[in-house]
Amino acid sequence: MLRGRMAIRHDLELEVRYSETDQMGIVHHASYLVWLEEGRTALMGAIGLPYHELERTGIGFGVRKVDVRYRQAVRYGDRVRVRTTLEESRGASLRFGYEVLRCSDRAVALTGTVEIACIELAKVRPTPLPRAVVAAIEAAGP
Amino acid sequence: MLRGRMAIRHDLELEVRYSETDQMGIVHHASYLVWLEEGRTALMGAIGLPYHELERTGIGFGVRKVDVRYRQAVRYGDRVRVRTTLEESRGASLRFGYEVLRCSDRAVALTGTVEIACIELAKVRPTPLPRAVVAAIEAAGP
Amino acid sequence: MLRGRMAIRHDLELEVRYSETDQMGIVHHASYLVWLEEGRTALMGAIGLPYHELERTGIGFGVRKVDVRYRQAVRYGDRVRVRTTLEESRGASLRFGYEVLRCSDRAVALTGTVEIACIELAKVRPTPLPRAVVAAIEAAGP
Amino acid sequence: MLRGRMAIRHDLELEVRYSETDQMGIVHHASYLVWLEEGRTALMGAIGLPYHELERTGIGFGVRKVDVRYRQAVRYGDRVRVRTTLEESRGASLRFGYEVLRCSDRAVALTGTVEIACIELAKVRPTPLPRAVVAAIEAAGP
Repeated sequence: MLRGRMAIRHDLELEVRYSETDQMGIVHHASYLVWLEEGRTALMGAIGLPYHELERTGIGFGVRKVDVRYRQAVRYGDRVRVRTTLEESRGASLRFGYEVLRCSDRAVALTGTVEIACIELAKVRPTPLPRAVVAAIEAAGP
Repeated sequence: MLRGRMAIRHDLELEVRYSETDQMGIVHHASYLVWLEEGRTALMGAIGLPYHELERTGIGFGVRKVDVRYRQAVRYGDRVRVRTTLEESRGASLRFGYEVLRCSDRAVALTGTVEIACIELAKVRPTPLPRAVVAAIEAAGP
Repeated sequence: MLRGRMAIRHDLELEVRYSETDQMGIVHHASYLVWLEEGRTALMGAIGLPYHELERTGIGFGVRKVDVRYRQAVRYGDRVRVRTTLEESRGASLRFGYEVLRCSDRAVALTGTVEIACIELAKVRPTPLPRAVVAAIEAAGP
Repeated sequence: MLRGRMAIRHDLELEVRYSETDQMGIVHHASYLVWLEEGRTALMGAIGLPYHELERTGIGFGVRKVDVRYRQAVRYGDRVRVRTTLEESRGASLRFGYEVLRCSDRAVALTGTVEIACIELAKVRPTPLPRAVVAAIEAAGP
């Protein structure tokens, strides 16, 4: 079983969508969680484990913990870089660290972490990370 | 098989949510589709066919057609009435007519129709309306 | 200026919407943030400060920090109680504590906190809580 | 003032996001409206009128009519092409025609039209298309 710290990083760039804003004139705080999710699935794809293929094997990633801090507003017309770092893999869980940057001025818009639990989709119940996932993470790690 | 016109009506009241607005300061047009969906599932529940129970039998309602006209803006702080009318049932499909009203002044915010196809969830494939659905609609009709 | 701890609590009940689920068959984790937002604006309304009226004065609540833990899955067909507690008010910020409960079995689906910064909407810039907000909180507190 | 028919076309490719699915295991029907919006703002950008810049002048596009037919399901893991055609410009309104295609097999997932009204943002009230918009459309047309 994989233990300890690692640091696999992936950058995903996204355009802010109009529907992601709210009447405050900035991106709604819940929209960022969607970006973070796309960031970690893009990271999984980059290490050879497309998340939609993982789900076909009956295994999924359920979000267990979100801890994020909003630092700068992001607006429609902005482009953002979602920087995802797979920080830790342990038993049935993964921890992803995040930075969301505004591309125009590199301002840090959000920092935080999201922990996911590996789950058996049929029962929505935790299950150890599949061997293929652990192997791909080890192969990609430093 | 049920044929012809009917008119089963149901009213659902909802508060506008902050996240349903966009930077134009009004409710985003896609948010209304969510309300319409809640309107028709509430209607189904009112005639004794809670939609979540229908799905447990392997049958669902897939949206086939949306034809709506936005007539007045709705804002955060408004309360709306989603008036759903089951207008027609035919083979594997249902047509729902809609009016969304602002509760404060009864202004008509949206009118339109949504057609759904009854589908077998396992295959996302059209299937005739189950007998229980047809019977409940006939019992509720005029 | 208000300081120290308080505990103003408000319960808001919501039906899960179909669109709040994802293909995992449970409510998507970002949907909860929308419920939490409705929970705290409902609390504001309950102490005499409807949030949409506050915004008309040029003042809004920007989310600064979200720290939540997902404990039990919630599904379409479930009803949830969003229990919001205004835990702290300090200068330009408020901290809300949360519990989301499934109404059917009182299982705790989510716990966590959200911190907001009081902002001047025109500039999306922090500003002290308006006197009226502080007064309403003090009047409602224990 | 521009009148009559034209055909300015733009293709935008998007990856389906996990949060765009629902428990039916396919993309939720409201998610498509977000794609169509991104399609028409991308078209505006392509003819030299970035929509976020238009809004800075106090002018926006409010959706007046949506008429779409869902033809094939789209799933997480799919990539789609949003083909937007500016079909007509008339006074204070624009009509966009749409095809959404699954990139893998070119199946047509959605066809339809969206009509927008040019509005004065401060009053959410129809206003003629600005001269710059009409000129850019004429310059880009056939």
